[in-house]
Amino acid sequence: MEPSTIPEILGRPGTEERLAALEARVAGLEERSAEDRVALVVFSGDLDRVLAAFVIATGAAAMGQQVSMFFTFWGLSVLKKSTDLQGKSFFQKAMAVMSPGSSESLPVSKMNYFGVGAKMLRTMMKQRNVTSLEGMIDLARELGVRMIACEMSRDVMGIKPSELQDGLECGGVATFLADSLKSRTALFI
Amino acid sequence: MEPSTIPEILGRPGTEERLAALEARVAGLEERSAEDRVALVVFSGDLDRVLAAFVIATGAAAMGQQVSMFFTFWGLSVLKKSTDLQGKSFFQKAMAVMSPGSSESLPVSKMNYFGVGAKMLRTMMKQRNVTSLEGMIDLARELGVRMIACEMSRDVMGIKPSELQDGLECGGVATFLADSLKSRTALFI
Amino acid sequence: MEPSTIPEILGRPGTEERLAALEARVAGLEERSAEDRVALVVFSGDLDRVLAAFVIATGAAAMGQQVSMFFTFWGLSVLKKSTDLQGKSFFQKAMAVMSPGSSESLPVSKMNYFGVGAKMLRTMMKQRNVTSLEGMIDLARELGVRMIACEMSRDVMGIKPSELQDGLECGGVATFLADSLKSRTALFI
Repeated sequence: MEPSTIPEILGRPGTEERLAALEARVAGLEERSAEDRVALVVFSGDLDRVLAAFVIATGAAAMGQQVSMFFTFWGLSVLKKSTDLQGKSFFQKAMAVMSPGSSESLPVSKMNYFGVGAKMLRTMMKQRNVTSLEGMIDLARELGVRMIACEMSRDVMGIKPSELQDGLECGGVATFLADSLKSRTALFI
Repeated sequence: MEPSTIPEILGRPGTEERLAALEARVAGLEERSAEDRVALVVFSGDLDRVLAAFVIATGAAAMGQQVSMFFTFWGLSVLKKSTDLQGKSFFQKAMAVMSPGSSESLPVSKMNYFGVGAKMLRTMMKQRNVTSLEGMIDLARELGVRMIACEMSRDVMGIKPSELQDGLECGGVATFLADSLKSRTALFI
Repeated sequence: MEPSTIPEILGRPGTEERLAALEARVAGLEERSAEDRVALVVFSGDLDRVLAAFVIATGAAAMGQQVSMFFTFWGLSVLKKSTDLQGKSFFQKAMAVMSPGSSESLPVSKMNYFGVGAKMLRTMMKQRNVTSLEGMIDLARELGVRMIACEMSRDVMGIKPSELQDGLECGGVATFLADSLKSRTALFI
């Protein structure tokens, strides 16, 4: 008779049963526990908010987190490299013309004054030796931050893959949630 | 003498003690671990942001998460079905008149141009066969997404229960936190 | 021979090995599990959003959570007590003059109408006996909510420590992430 079965005879679970139960519970906890991961939705296309997103993304990556940034709606402007009106519907053309053509023409959310505010913020950052948005985007790539363009927004706005920067992933809300549900911090920016 | 007590005599914790300690620690971890739960604050009343909230909410519910959406401040407009000025204070009346009367009259956060932007976005979504906001709200209900109207905002703005859609819960910040503290992902939209 | 070594001879891990393995896995889970902690980025300087941040912060603190609020960009206005233009660059002066000088002059994000909207909201809150923003800030301090001013924003905008309220911490994105990665709920407001 194995020693661990003795208490069973006495009517309470033995060592073997308790070990097996603990192993199952710990495996359950491990499967559900968050990974070293940060997930950001970049919904906004405002320079100030996008800067905050990249400061957090590069900071988290530097601290060893797997970071994914999910660009949706106005946030897609950050990833644009060109505008191609061909094949777009009337409204898609209107939206393309009125939206920023790349990260370099993002407005600020307040006091933009037709672009003066954005230029002012960029100058102030330069004067204090803070990396520019474009520098932060490059840094994020170097640090392995995943940048995902929202397919639904792309589709609704009629933005072609050729209008976006190279080396991006595409994905839907399930792509974002798969990451965010396993992440330590998820933010909507 | 039970076998597990032998090491105790030798001066280190026995199997029984270690099992009991592990069981307590695992129970502690289980109590604190996140549930399959997503909690969203819908603070904004802008069509574009509210759409993002419902895409995430319905997506998460479809992935098996318990989803709660907490509508506060401008977000309450999403849940309005009518406007009743009776019994409202002067400021409450002013705010009611200037705010959207239902989900159908939400503006977009940028390029709204007195409602043209919102109509444009709705048309663009329809052209690409994306479910309308109202369709998403219905879908959220079908998927069991909990929709909670913030009591404090309701009280400050003087919005009566009869002005809101049927079948909503009411709650305060403690209601939101009770969910968000146990959730895998919580977002402020 | 110790009883737990018997199964080893039979070719499967003994009680001792399984206990040691479980202890290591549980220690790993404990190290990574979230603390009773809530972390908020207050990016916005709009009265309505800042109020939401303080309602959540004080609510969470009252529920026993360690709360930290990280004020960045427009959110720094909440913490200002005075404006001192000396030593500021031209753009820093311009931004200081155009930004609210303290929590008392924050605008609302919609229908501000040069401050009328903010006054209206404050009056509506008072009529319903809801604590004012300044009352909530005091309450947050009493409840031990940590308030951290973002160093990078301070530096870019040229805001001196003497322009901010007393008793604040200063920190960078690493300060925020250290808290948010260990928190149950993190929000970007």
